[in-house]
Amino acid sequence: MIIVTRKGVTDAEVDHIRERIESAGLRTHLSRGVERTIIGCVGDETLVRGLPLLSIPGVEAVHEVLKPYKLASREFSPDPTRIPFGDTVIGGNELVVVAGPCSVESREMMSRTAVQVGAAGARGIRGGAFKPRSSPYAFRGLGAEGLQILRDIRSETGLPVVTEVMDTRQVEQVAGYADVLQVGARNMQNFNLLTEVGRTHRPVLLKRGLSATVKELLLAAEYVMSQGNPHVILCERGIRTFETATRNTFDLAAIPVLKRETHLPVFADPSHAAGRRPLVAPLAYAAVAAGADGLLVEVHPDPETAVSDGEQSLDFAEFDEFMNGLAGFCAAAGRTLGAAPERP
Amino acid sequence: MIIVTRKGVTDAEVDHIRERIESAGLRTHLSRGVERTIIGCVGDETLVRGLPLLSIPGVEAVHEVLKPYKLASREFSPDPTRIPFGDTVIGGNELVVVAGPCSVESREMMSRTAVQVGAAGARGIRGGAFKPRSSPYAFRGLGAEGLQILRDIRSETGLPVVTEVMDTRQVEQVAGYADVLQVGARNMQNFNLLTEVGRTHRPVLLKRGLSATVKELLLAAEYVMSQGNPHVILCERGIRTFETATRNTFDLAAIPVLKRETHLPVFADPSHAAGRRPLVAPLAYAAVAAGADGLLVEVHPDPETAVSDGEQSLDFAEFDEFMNGLAGFCAAAGRTLGAAPERP
Amino acid sequence: MIIVTRKGVTDAEVDHIRERIESAGLRTHLSRGVERTIIGCVGDETLVRGLPLLSIPGVEAVHEVLKPYKLASREFSPDPTRIPFGDTVIGGNELVVVAGPCSVESREMMSRTAVQVGAAGARGIRGGAFKPRSSPYAFRGLGAEGLQILRDIRSETGLPVVTEVMDTRQVEQVAGYADVLQVGARNMQNFNLLTEVGRTHRPVLLKRGLSATVKELLLAAEYVMSQGNPHVILCERGIRTFETATRNTFDLAAIPVLKRETHLPVFADPSHAAGRRPLVAPLAYAAVAAGADGLLVEVHPDPETAVSDGEQSLDFAEFDEFMNGLAGFCAAAGRTLGAAPERP
Amino acid sequence: MIIVTRKGVTDAEVDHIRERIESAGLRTHLSRGVERTIIGCVGDETLVRGLPLLSIPGVEAVHEVLKPYKLASREFSPDPTRIPFGDTVIGGNELVVVAGPCSVESREMMSRTAVQVGAAGARGIRGGAFKPRSSPYAFRGLGAEGLQILRDIRSETGLPVVTEVMDTRQVEQVAGYADVLQVGARNMQNFNLLTEVGRTHRPVLLKRGLSATVKELLLAAEYVMSQGNPHVILCERGIRTFETATRNTFDLAAIPVLKRETHLPVFADPSHAAGRRPLVAPLAYAAVAAGADGLLVEVHPDPETAVSDGEQSLDFAEFDEFMNGLAGFCAAAGRTLGAAPERP
Repeated sequence: MIIVTRKGVTDAEVDHIRERIESAGLRTHLSRGVERTIIGCVGDETLVRGLPLLSIPGVEAVHEVLKPYKLASREFSPDPTRIPFGDTVIGGNELVVVAGPCSVESREMMSRTAVQVGAAGARGIRGGAFKPRSSPYAFRGLGAEGLQILRDIRSETGLPVVTEVMDTRQVEQVAGYADVLQVGARNMQNFNLLTEVGRTHRPVLLKRGLSATVKELLLAAEYVMSQGNPHVILCERGIRTFETATRNTFDLAAIPVLKRETHLPVFADPSHAAGRRPLVAPLAYAAVAAGADGLLVEVHPDPETAVSDGEQSLDFAEFDEFMNGLAGFCAAAGRTLGAAPERP
Repeated sequence: MIIVTRKGVTDAEVDHIRERIESAGLRTHLSRGVERTIIGCVGDETLVRGLPLLSIPGVEAVHEVLKPYKLASREFSPDPTRIPFGDTVIGGNELVVVAGPCSVESREMMSRTAVQVGAAGARGIRGGAFKPRSSPYAFRGLGAEGLQILRDIRSETGLPVVTEVMDTRQVEQVAGYADVLQVGARNMQNFNLLTEVGRTHRPVLLKRGLSATVKELLLAAEYVMSQGNPHVILCERGIRTFETATRNTFDLAAIPVLKRETHLPVFADPSHAAGRRPLVAPLAYAAVAAGADGLLVEVHPDPETAVSDGEQSLDFAEFDEFMNGLAGFCAAAGRTLGAAPERP
Repeated sequence: MIIVTRKGVTDAEVDHIRERIESAGLRTHLSRGVERTIIGCVGDETLVRGLPLLSIPGVEAVHEVLKPYKLASREFSPDPTRIPFGDTVIGGNELVVVAGPCSVESREMMSRTAVQVGAAGARGIRGGAFKPRSSPYAFRGLGAEGLQILRDIRSETGLPVVTEVMDTRQVEQVAGYADVLQVGARNMQNFNLLTEVGRTHRPVLLKRGLSATVKELLLAAEYVMSQGNPHVILCERGIRTFETATRNTFDLAAIPVLKRETHLPVFADPSHAAGRRPLVAPLAYAAVAAGADGLLVEVHPDPETAVSDGEQSLDFAEFDEFMNGLAGFCAAAGRTLGAAPERP
Repeated sequence: MIIVTRKGVTDAEVDHIRERIESAGLRTHLSRGVERTIIGCVGDETLVRGLPLLSIPGVEAVHEVLKPYKLASREFSPDPTRIPFGDTVIGGNELVVVAGPCSVESREMMSRTAVQVGAAGARGIRGGAFKPRSSPYAFRGLGAEGLQILRDIRSETGLPVVTEVMDTRQVEQVAGYADVLQVGARNMQNFNLLTEVGRTHRPVLLKRGLSATVKELLLAAEYVMSQGNPHVILCERGIRTFETATRNTFDLAAIPVLKRETHLPVFADPSHAAGRRPLVAPLAYAAVAAGADGLLVEVHPDPETAVSDGEQSLDFAEFDEFMNGLAGFCAAAGRTLGAAPERP
């Protein structure tokens, strides 16, 4: 922590600032410049992080020196975190594709979709049993029945399941069915939910909030990890900006920034970022080129009839084409793709 | 709903689009222009709201005609909603100030603060027993003990209590202690929480999310209201933008926009918008000038030592001065202020 | 300037960093913490401002201590800048209203408008002869003819004229006709234009860019001032965010922030921020409550037929009502309003 | 144009709206729904585009049907625009890399850089003689001397030159030296400058503004094209958002959106988007994967000593490595890369 004082700060003010810092357990170090006096704080920065230093008379600016997250930082664990996922590993050399519909609509559509995407090279299936919807009048998922369908499809196909948990009361239930617990963008700072999923043994796929910074995403991961669960997958899915040509603004640069800042694996969700089918492939390929470890892609047997997110869902033929195009970018990025033996 | 088709759309595509709409229960109405064919949809727009119309071949754009919220709209209830609050009413002619610390830190500080702000004209007290914090290592509130303190202070002073509920599992508990349930900005789209507070009989103070549009704020209110609870207070507290000179960007215009769109009362929280003490008064006065029904203001006996939000908390002397300055703006806005008899 | 080094920085790297700083003419000051070494730079910070310090091996972060603007800062001139404007002064105790149409459309409409707004208490008139338009097919102003109309109206009414200059080649011409040169939001970082208006003797009304920070607005003012022209009026007119309920997001807090940071007068333009007539008055009143020194308001004899900005222009009756409502807020803010003798 | 009326609109209001539209030369088409009456406008939409339709009593919303740009739209010219550039073509199958320093600092450094980047496969050089700088106290370029250096380097190496023009008064001069005129992000809506570069015969590289939408970028291109110059290259270089981990937020999705909307070639500038050297390669590779036609990359012999943008400039070794990594992504995207014969 570095404290910059106001021009014309008095000695008494400087003394008072130093007392505050020292009474919290840090040492201080004074540096008098031509126009400003600077107070360096030496010691455990977390001891003063909550203090309202800016409200102390004479303080003009406060700069943090250390990162507010620890467990999630690359300094804490220089080696990448690898998370077992069905027959593969997330965070390793393979680019892991997880595909499926936005919502679990029926057993039949989930089954058809899982078989198709698995044949095309997907390594896991996604699908929501509990759905966050901005209107109270929209379809909110099949609930428990949807979870049961997902478990049955998992048994049939062997593909692990990623599904969302929205409520602290559902965590135990969903953890009983899912291989990976997804925390949605709107819940990225639902701190009680983060705490609860941190108490399970399931990996957590944590989507970046619409207005969350990369730093806040890492702090949200820290919440989960601080409860004892080290298996967090971060997911860039677009942020909210002034641009309306896409549903969200895909912050592609967050991928290499995260790969440098943290040892956790990084996914991208091009479907939610784009909001429109023709943009899904370009965004996905770009994510791989930028270093993503995996992709979450919405696929539906008949997007025109989907109860949610149909506008951004690929149909089966589009998904096949998508996977074919993906292979070259994986090769260029030095990654393998999928289990399908015929993939070049 | 109005559907604009692509240039060169075929008759078969137009027929297919019309079939989709009509099979959902609406009638269609065709208008052929020089370059585009337009399909108007006549009937209950909610029947097609979830459909992925943009994914139907030939569709270029879809414009909604009706608002997605009903209960919250001014059309539904032309008269302003008035919510009893202690000795006064929120949504009436009085400008209602609710003041207090960010966190309930102790019985003693809450008691002192309540007495002081009440004497200065505040009509209710605020204070968090459960605190959402972006770092897992920060103070997260006194919990149940904090709720008990709030209830005791309420008994002592007669001032009604506004406090936050963060978790569906806490709703019943908090509703047993608080007069108004606050839903924080980060939970504005925690849809299960909205549903639960909608099932209580307590008024709900709903803070706008950092990246929420005015329309989404009204949809969040609709969630609460659709469960049977008509008493929602909307609160502008700043949105997230590129500007870093303030903690958030106070979207002042949201206040008159909301006053035109909805019958619900509108509060402003200048403390969180500003993030710095000297800006609280100008933002608060501006909110009154723009039509706000009430203010949420952070006050602390000794902001330098506050465990949270000290940088934006007024001390007692500042709050007195703040209330004195507020009176003139209330008068200019045609509003009364507070119970304190000596207020001009 | 404070330089924070990376964890594990070597002594050789620290030495190299210090050499860079010292060879630029500053002294350095070392502070070794538990995890990070910090290098304070003592001396004239402008000597190193352009240097790519972050690209020196071992550097993790760089914090500026001094503000990048000087002439515009309150430290440079503690007294507010007062700029003569017709019969009054901008930056004094009076709230100065400048009103008129977006574009000069004809002599007749300008004359009618000037007479009306002057009678209602406006102290200056606005109107564009050169119009920036986002489409090349839109009306771009009457040009030289518009300037002549403005000068004639000024002679008739005595009201000083504020009009926009868009091009370095027009500066001399426009300065020959206008009392105040307006630099539009889209030109706030047209640095050559800023330099040219800085070489005239006319006050400059500088509108904040759509994506400009407060700091960048002050740097743009510094451009003008560094050429010898001390008379800059800053104008908040809304920034671009994700919210679409208003044309722009009125960053009200910028007003008190600027009043603290600079001695220059601060205007608000509620018309462009709002984009819709019913929001103009609430935003304007709020600006006054927040400390604005003046307002720029669009008024048109018949907004329905305006060639530009009709949707946000008040008609004469609305402007009268607007001014009547304004008086109370000026009084509450401790300001006088206009010359009209009957104003309370 | 589609006009949605307010609930409870009167017949007289509807008649008045229709008269306004019809007197502008369009026909109207009425559609009465359950809650709203809709007025379709048939004919040349540009005739009503400037009208303040929202200010007509009874109008609730106005939806444009046609795009506001024509010459830039894919409908106008289904075939991609191909622009000759030295020995190659921009907008064809080759991925064209243009590299060089931010500023022309000296003949010697430009010469060394041009030789190096050419050998590594760059097809053109970049470098600024006139520099927009946010502070008036920063280095603003060598001016005419810089232009002469660029021309000399062009003669030596045969590499065409891209350089910025900032001022309408410089257009003729810069066009006499440069192969491509760059319009910087801060000038994207400097409409007079767009008009002037549209009157030259030089291709124009148009950078997206920090707060410009894709639609506004295309309207800016339309300005240039409407003057008779069909050779516009669009360039995504990052937009301004709340995220501070990168200098700007690289809006990668703008690349495929533009490729669908327009026939003009699309470049990316990963250096300005990233602001930091280690992010340049991931962003560039992603841009290629998303469909970019070319890249603008900052390269400097010694980034630590660069007078501007050193933090985001690659050195020669980094640029070689960058080009080596790029080849695989070009192959995956079905593009060729550069002239260097040894490239795989």
